Amino acid sequence: MSKRYKLYEGKAKIMYEGPEPGTIIQYFKDDATAFNNQKHDLIAGKGVINNRISEYLMTKLTEIGVPNHFIRRLNMREQLIHEVEMLPLEVAVRNVVAGSLAKRFGLEESTQLQRSIIEYYYKSDELGDPLISEGHINCFGWATNQEIDDMIILSLRVNDFLVGLFLGVGIRLVDFKLEFGRWHNSNEEVQIVLADEISPDNCRLWDIKTNEKMDKDRFRRDLGGVKEAYQEVARRLGVLTEINNIDLNNHNSLSVQDGLA
Amino acid sequence: MSKRYKLYEGKAKIMYEGPEPGTIIQYFKDDATAFNNQKHDLIAGKGVINNRISEYLMTKLTEIGVPNHFIRRLNMREQLIHEVEMLPLEVAVRNVVAGSLAKRFGLEESTQLQRSIIEYYYKSDELGDPLISEGHINCFGWATNQEIDDMIILSLRVNDFLVGLFLGVGIRLVDFKLEFGRWHNSNEEVQIVLADEISPDNCRLWDIKTNEKMDKDRFRRDLGGVKEAYQEVARRLGVLTEINNIDLNNHNSLSVQDGLA
Ligand SMILES: Nc1ncnc2c1ncn2[C@@H]1O[C@H](COP(=O)(O)OP(=O)(O)OP(=O)(O)O)[C@@H](O)[C@H]1O
Ligand SMILES: Nc1ncnc2c1ncn2[C@@H]1O[C@H](COP(=O)(O)OP(=O)(O)OP(=O)(O)O)[C@@H](O)[C@H]1O
Ligand SMILES: [Mg+2]
Ligand SMILES: [Mg+2]
Repeated sequence: MSKRYKLYEGKAKIMYEGPEPGTIIQYFKDDATAFNNQKHDLIAGKGVINNRISEYLMTKLTEIGVPNHFIRRLNMREQLIHEVEMLPLEVAVRNVVAGSLAKRFGLEESTQLQRSIIEYYYKSDELGDPLISEGHINCFGWATNQEIDDMIILSLRVNDFLVGLFLGVGIRLVDFKLEFGRWHNSNEEVQIVLADEISPDNCRLWDIKTNEKMDKDRFRRDLGGVKEAYQEVARRLGVLTEINNIDLNNHNSLSVQDGLA
Repeated sequence: MSKRYKLYEGKAKIMYEGPEPGTIIQYFKDDATAFNNQKHDLIAGKGVINNRISEYLMTKLTEIGVPNHFIRRLNMREQLIHEVEMLPLEVAVRNVVAGSLAKRFGLEESTQLQRSIIEYYYKSDELGDPLISEGHINCFGWATNQEIDDMIILSLRVNDFLVGLFLGVGIRLVDFKLEFGRWHNSNEEVQIVLADEISPDNCRLWDIKTNEKMDKDRFRRDLGGVKEAYQEVARRLGVLTEINNIDLNNHNSLSVQDGLA
């Protein structure tokens, strides 16, 4: 295990070289960060929960034909994914006014938007992930027009599906952030696919009835009960049954070989 | 009430002239028919349940920006809708092999389709609602190419949303049928909007765990428990709380004036 080659350690995940060329092992840490790394803490068990939630959502998105990097979950904290050439972008989809949108435009939080808004951010910690427009993406060569179109179509499909899914489990999908990459498939074709993760770390999820926050805002705003909120999201999605009785505090991942074909 | 002008009486609904020009009152009957009217029965309370389910789904579709005819529910069995110029078409979306698709292609029921299939049927009882292709729609002038494109985009959005929503409440959306119309809005613009109803009468809904049918196939195949299945769908969607204790057998609608502005 210690011989695995670490490709990258980020704020929430570690990427290890996978067992086959073109694959990566994505390890979910318990670290939580906010405000561009100024705030940092450990939420015991978060990595285990996010691994499950992201597995579930990516699997369901595959089923409805939204291409993504997910191959299979390996163990409590790790999943096998296709290595892709990441676009240095974050694509945010917003259904309800919250966070920076409220701030930037002086809007009241929790107002339903008449149409969903797509925003792009340039992924750069040094620059503080600045908001950008399609013109910037184009000009700086971060993605072609066709790739932007593909990301928009996929993002809106993901939104329609997730709004429905979360509504079904009593949760309002306020907004979320996606990352995309170029996947060079075996036929040497290049395709835009969804990558990274979808979890309460990068969605705003409010309980439909109480408006209670069930996402990383609990950490950002020191509301407490972060892990419990993430667990409740997993429970409602029906993915927590198996891990209910397992010690979420256990930081050791099972053997990487586990579950590999 | 008896003075209301009846515009059309169909197999499952009656359309009355609405209180304002361009509006219709859609009354949901308890009648169930199948096999082009050869099989007929009354399912006490079905109309009440379908009125609620369709209200809920159309309202949520409006919220995500899928234009449709729904204005508001008036009472237990009636809803106010915009009058539209119906296209003589049924648009079916299929995610899983079932019904006529299994039969026509000799496929096994319950196989997940690799991609969702859209089918068009020409709405004609005399001809038995025959399957048609875009070429027919074009040639016979039932819709323009632009209108076909609009229907496809809307149908796929409805599918993404409903697959998610039903998954969230433990139901597999196997397939469903939509009807569209041309809406002449106040600016004399013409727009394709979703019309008719969305209910267990025109969806195939299977319990995720047991695969139990929760839709009109219970009636078609004499499986019994039709009303109970429809009620369970409504309950899971959270729309049955109010009507739980009301006598679903009551065929009388409340006054049409009820709830009108
Ligand atoms: N399929 C993939 N192939 C290659 N890289 C990926 C893939 N999916 C995600 N990544 C990248 O792996 C990293 C995931 O680690 P992590 O989320 O911890 O990053 P990060 O440093 O937190 O950055 P940020 O907070 O801005 O997302 C990100 O840089 C992400 O873009
Ligand atoms: N917004 C609308 N404006 C005008 N007509 C509508 C609207 N929505 C639905 N309709 C039409 O009203 C009728 C609804 O009645 P019903 O569903 O009972 O018809 P039907 O005779 O059962 O036909 P079918 O079984 O083929 O749907 C249908 O003809 C439908 O096309
Ligand atoms: Mg990240
Ligand atoms: Mg009908």
